[in-house]
Amino acid sequence: MEIDFQKSGGLVPAIIQDQRTGDVLMLGFMTPESLAETQRTGEAVFFSRSRNKLWKKGESSGHVLRVREMRVDCDADALLVRVEAAGPGVCHEGYRSCFFRKLAPDGNAEIVAERTFAPEKVYGPEKTP
Amino acid sequence: MEIDFQKSGGLVPAIIQDQRTGDVLMLGFMTPESLAETQRTGEAVFFSRSRNKLWKKGESSGHVLRVREMRVDCDADALLVRVEAAGPGVCHEGYRSCFFRKLAPDGNAEIVAERTFAPEKVYGPEKTP
Repeated sequence: MEIDFQKSGGLVPAIIQDQRTGDVLMLGFMTPESLAETQRTGEAVFFSRSRNKLWKKGESSGHVLRVREMRVDCDADALLVRVEAAGPGVCHEGYRSCFFRKLAPDGNAEIVAERTFAPEKVYGPEKTP
Repeated sequence: MEIDFQKSGGLVPAIIQDQRTGDVLMLGFMTPESLAETQRTGEAVFFSRSRNKLWKKGESSGHVLRVREMRVDCDADALLVRVEAAGPGVCHEGYRSCFFRKLAPDGNAEIVAERTFAPEKVYGPEKTP
């Protein structure tokens, strides 16, 4: 099985889904190296486009994503990673899922989830929004 | 709410999730224009990177994706589209979800879903894999 990294410029989008609840938690990108590290360690490792380097989810917060199952799509250019998420949430803004805002047809966004942790206690004050 | 289309070169990844079952059905990409069409019509419209044009899901098969809720992530660079999917499946290979293969740590892929329709009857013989 060859994953097609070329369509997104050397990356594949990786959807992170909570295996127990089915909730979509976040979307990251993986390079061949981060996919290999994910498979080797059993915990999700992404490629950070803003920092231009591998990024192990949870390396500072402890909120690692333990891989329970990986799926690949028909065109082999997207991954679905079903995980058990350690800790109270994956989002650096303090929510269980990064998709905590509903987008209305008029373009307005509304927060529809409860905060599950205080990001400044996990990441330190300099990292909070 | 400004969606950040620049990080993926004018596109945002859009995760399609079955609102009822929570299953992730596919991943597509949207441009500002396809997002606007999705919001205007209430049915998912993507940008096809291979054909380089807008692509309304279901335009040939009738398997449209009726948008029930849209979510946007913390960085505003990914969308989660919760849908009611018309028809027996979204995948052009005849499955309910495009993520019908499990990816093993050794890189092998195994089909873990049942076919729900015969693609050659929906798309015609020339479109089947």
